[in-house]
Amino acid sequence: MINEKLLHPESIVIVGASNNTSKPGGKIVKNLLDHNFKGDLFAINPVESQIQGIPAFHSVAELPDIDLAILAIPAKYCLETVTQLAEENNTKAFIIISAGFGETDEAGKELEKKIVDVIEKNNACLIGPNCIGVMTPSHASVFTTPIPELTHEGCDFISGSGATAVFIIESGIPKGLRFANVFSVGNSAHTGVEDILAYLDETYQPGISPRVKLLYIENINNPDKLLSHATSLIRKGCRIAAIKAGSSSAGSRAASSHTGALTSSDAAVEALFRKAGIVRCYGREELTTVASVFMGKELEGEKLGIITHAGGPGVMLTDALEAGGLKIPEIEDSPAKTALLKKLFPGSSVENPIDFLATGTAEQLGHIIDACEKDFDVDGMAVIYGSPGLFPIGDVYDLLSEKMKVCKKPIYPILPSIINVKEDVAHFLSRGNVNFPDEVLLGRALTKVMNTPRPSASENFTELVNRDEIRSVIEKCENGYQSPDVIHQLFNSAGIPMVKETVATSESEAVLAALNIGFPVVMKVVGPVHKTEVGGVVLNIRNVTEVRKEFHHLFQIEGTEGVLIAQMASGTELFLGATYEDTFGHVVLCGMGGIYVEVMKDVASGLAPLSNTEALSMIKSLKSYKILQGFRNQKGVNIEKFADILVRLSWLLRNAIEIKEIDINPLLGNENEILAVDARIRIER
Amino acid sequence: MINEKLLHPESIVIVGASNNTSKPGGKIVKNLLDHNFKGDLFAINPVESQIQGIPAFHSVAELPDIDLAILAIPAKYCLETVTQLAEENNTKAFIIISAGFGETDEAGKELEKKIVDVIEKNNACLIGPNCIGVMTPSHASVFTTPIPELTHEGCDFISGSGATAVFIIESGIPKGLRFANVFSVGNSAHTGVEDILAYLDETYQPGISPRVKLLYIENINNPDKLLSHATSLIRKGCRIAAIKAGSSSAGSRAASSHTGALTSSDAAVEALFRKAGIVRCYGREELTTVASVFMGKELEGEKLGIITHAGGPGVMLTDALEAGGLKIPEIEDSPAKTALLKKLFPGSSVENPIDFLATGTAEQLGHIIDACEKDFDVDGMAVIYGSPGLFPIGDVYDLLSEKMKVCKKPIYPILPSIINVKEDVAHFLSRGNVNFPDEVLLGRALTKVMNTPRPSASENFTELVNRDEIRSVIEKCENGYQSPDVIHQLFNSAGIPMVKETVATSESEAVLAALNIGFPVVMKVVGPVHKTEVGGVVLNIRNVTEVRKEFHHLFQIEGTEGVLIAQMASGTELFLGATYEDTFGHVVLCGMGGIYVEVMKDVASGLAPLSNTEALSMIKSLKSYKILQGFRNQKGVNIEKFADILVRLSWLLRNAIEIKEIDINPLLGNENEILAVDARIRIER
Repeated sequence: MINEKLLHPESIVIVGASNNTSKPGGKIVKNLLDHNFKGDLFAINPVESQIQGIPAFHSVAELPDIDLAILAIPAKYCLETVTQLAEENNTKAFIIISAGFGETDEAGKELEKKIVDVIEKNNACLIGPNCIGVMTPSHASVFTTPIPELTHEGCDFISGSGATAVFIIESGIPKGLRFANVFSVGNSAHTGVEDILAYLDETYQPGISPRVKLLYIENINNPDKLLSHATSLIRKGCRIAAIKAGSSSAGSRAASSHTGALTSSDAAVEALFRKAGIVRCYGREELTTVASVFMGKELEGEKLGIITHAGGPGVMLTDALEAGGLKIPEIEDSPAKTALLKKLFPGSSVENPIDFLATGTAEQLGHIIDACEKDFDVDGMAVIYGSPGLFPIGDVYDLLSEKMKVCKKPIYPILPSIINVKEDVAHFLSRGNVNFPDEVLLGRALTKVMNTPRPSASENFTELVNRDEIRSVIEKCENGYQSPDVIHQLFNSAGIPMVKETVATSESEAVLAALNIGFPVVMKVVGPVHKTEVGGVVLNIRNVTEVRKEFHHLFQIEGTEGVLIAQMASGTELFLGATYEDTFGHVVLCGMGGIYVEVMKDVASGLAPLSNTEALSMIKSLKSYKILQGFRNQKGVNIEKFADILVRLSWLLRNAIEIKEIDINPLLGNENEILAVDARIRIER
Repeated sequence: MINEKLLHPESIVIVGASNNTSKPGGKIVKNLLDHNFKGDLFAINPVESQIQGIPAFHSVAELPDIDLAILAIPAKYCLETVTQLAEENNTKAFIIISAGFGETDEAGKELEKKIVDVIEKNNACLIGPNCIGVMTPSHASVFTTPIPELTHEGCDFISGSGATAVFIIESGIPKGLRFANVFSVGNSAHTGVEDILAYLDETYQPGISPRVKLLYIENINNPDKLLSHATSLIRKGCRIAAIKAGSSSAGSRAASSHTGALTSSDAAVEALFRKAGIVRCYGREELTTVASVFMGKELEGEKLGIITHAGGPGVMLTDALEAGGLKIPEIEDSPAKTALLKKLFPGSSVENPIDFLATGTAEQLGHIIDACEKDFDVDGMAVIYGSPGLFPIGDVYDLLSEKMKVCKKPIYPILPSIINVKEDVAHFLSRGNVNFPDEVLLGRALTKVMNTPRPSASENFTELVNRDEIRSVIEKCENGYQSPDVIHQLFNSAGIPMVKETVATSESEAVLAALNIGFPVVMKVVGPVHKTEVGGVVLNIRNVTEVRKEFHHLFQIEGTEGVLIAQMASGTELFLGATYEDTFGHVVLCGMGGIYVEVMKDVASGLAPLSNTEALSMIKSLKSYKILQGFRNQKGVNIEKFADILVRLSWLLRNAIEIKEIDINPLLGNENEILAVDARIRIER
């Protein structure tokens, strides 16, 4: 865990400081000097007595007590330096920018571990090694540029990669994105992305702490921690956007069931982000655009007014927003509309987009914004205003800036003329605003934000299953695919309804079972995994004679250990499944069965355990939801029951991480009940 | 049509020229003076005798012969000026930037028409009115900035909106995008986007003319012209990318059939672009990124090598490219790989992405590029190289620039540090290169380009139908929904196989028909449009007694005019349909029937007429294609026959534009044959 000394140190020493600002140890001193650090700065250099004007010592032993130490020296000297500072100089925060540790070899990893031991023993914290450093509003302890404007009004940014952090900042600055605390965690020897997020959550002060968090993640080491603190922060009013790089690489994993083929560790990331309410981004441009959306006021509905002085961008923005599900409603006729139209030049149009022509003025823009704020039925505004380069348009941007401050509805500024009115745009940004130079990238970012549901404050996770029974069944199981008997016991304990069925190993048992269940019945071989392929499934058996005949027939199939006699259910085919993803837990899937899952790939996924709300929203997100509700002459299935079974399955799995794969395929459902017909469970410890 | 005098005038007059460069008439003079025009410049101004140093006259009557006239005067003076110049000064090219014409009112439209009459009478050409002007490598006749670098190596750009053209240029310049000819067509009074494209096609000189064409279109007035010239240019080796704004607005059109609900004029645009091979873009950023992809060498395969000095962007690019279907193949072990690895710093990795570390040098980059060019099995390269800001990296970019010139494989440069090494990036661009600052936007643009098929040179459009028969049937039809009889005749003439069926109006006719067709048969009411809803369809009638009974039953349904007796077909349900879109012609749809079309919206569309190749590619693009091929135990349908029927339908429609809507729903297909079972045709003249 990080601490206050890292964020607000009163003294900093740079070990390995240099006068050469082309070297990390030189640039970091320069950055600290150039950006606002108000405390005491010290340098350690083997030769010099001053570095860039600050006092330099030849050894850390000469230093007074120090809050934060930044190490830019070869890896092999780091342990000694950390030990001295932590034990003798009361240093509680360290940043090691040096490389040559765990990322290099085993010896480096060992060294890293020894340093962490010293850190922990002394109750200190460590960022890195192999990182670019940390920036906060009170100090810019990085060896890289650019240093963005650092303010508590900016966003917190935690990055698993130093270079990528630099590139993300370079993508954000031209948009006016400001930052608060920036952490590059490097090798995460002591502090990972999740740990910093936890600290930001635990120290969060509403109205004071930065409200927007950005994450660039290469590996999620502790999904539970990420999930719980992201959820907690979002519930406190924060917005979080994140890139998890590496979505494609994991997709190729071989798996024996088709649930396996449908999921991947990326599906787990997807499910985790959705559960937490994190807006998932796939690139730097997208991340900084979503962050810019977050910086403004909250859009509290789906209706947007588009205000433009040029037709084209207004139409393209409309297309992008409507494609993402937002609404650009027509402005209804009203006295306000008529009054507004009179204030605009002839030829202007107060529909939506509201077009006030190339010649539209600042004053007119003010009237339009006021009408959208007070009179028109929209929840926010997008204002498009560029320039053909004839004259400056600072007055328009000043007006826009003012209105963005006073209006309750959010206003998204689209200032495309980043060359023609470069200075005017720069001045607009210097007033603390962001700019979206491309309307379509804004449109996609905004709809992405709006389509990412936040975790509801009242989300109720009810454990519906009999945990003790489940554990006692699981503990008796061997690894591998489980028998119908085990499946039955587990489903019983979880309250997942299944067709009546019994395994028979003799003809008379089979007949008795069929009579107990009631005709018609289904008979299936027990043993072979791919039952259908070996002709091991016989449907619609109507009497005792047929039972006897099929029993003998089925027992001749190779590998058959018994015959399952089951109730013949009917209804719409449904599908449930899950795989266990390392450290994430179970990713649970639902969909309609057969072709809908296998060909149309129409499945929804979630991370176990699921609340009822989550289960319902998964089902509703299916394309085939319309069919589940009942379509044309075909009757629907009981959606509430389906959601309930989904929740029960997720809790069964939550209590049995030994289950690595489960397919319930099919379930058969109608308006009254849903029954699991066939299931496969693979256990592996 | 435009002419040579517009592109390469030897003399230009600016009517309404001004010394005030904040006014269009002043700025246009400044732009011409600042950018390379080598011919004679004249100004018309009521007062001055010199404008910005060029000779000014008080009236056009004083001018010598003039090739190109640019009018920046009030609309009401334009007709007179154009007439004088066209008739007395041999002026063959006009640009009217003035507004106040057709976009304002009827009087303006009239005036516009009169000017066009003069233009046509004198065999001249006109751009505008209400436009920003024209730029070519020999003159910058626009009143706007910025003026991009104008060179024959740049791209041609035709825009239906002046302001949007400016914003697109502003989006392109920071990427290094250069332009050749830029046309802002304004009101398109005499010359529209299609006309200019036609001129560029007809005057195209391989190796000399610009190879990349960009279009920003708000209205497609002549789809046939756009289609034929775009196709022709692309077949000659050009690449075309276009934005057609307004994709969402048209989607809400009410329609009586569900084919109607599935299509829209946007589907027609989509189909036209796909048929021509135009890469459709949805925003300015996307357009200029795709254009930048076009500016490089052609990627002739799907395998890309990613070369990076920072992990994160390499992974994000991999994700984006693989999501779009490109391949980032592993670099196989080989002597070349071993040799390359030795030239890199320890810790570098020659997998794919190839990571040569933050400290990687220009020399190392050269070795990697050479290996990708000569040894590794990739078709192109993406090179990611930014900077943390410690020192300039111009040597790396110089090396990269050299390699981009000499390598046969395309190299996509991703230089993210647009702030840290701003000067180095600018220098790189000044050498004629483009830059992709965001790797994911590049990845999406590149996959979009690769996923847009070009029209094949050998595309063979065969008219399979009996045109005369079709016309004679159509000419006898009244407007409205057509009888089974008409549908039969049309399908016969087009060679679309249909189930045997006859309309009976008496019991004995019905019995005879059933006996002729052979049992089992289907009986349906003729008259009511929604047959199923009124209980007007009876399936599986097996004998004469049932025919008699159902005949009486059906005839009691209100609105029934007869009873259709049809062959009872079986097989997989298929769907075909089409709607007529004004000026575009018929948009033809295909898919699997029932739920696949209605709920899953799994349809493919194309523009009539279709070639066999197009029809096959439509069918193969369906998600349900796997099912059509035969899935698990279910047999497939004859894909070739389905494609053949699709082609026939498209030609039937091509010869019968009176058909405004057609649904063939369902067709029933198996491995041998496909039969249309039911169809509705609406004719409207």
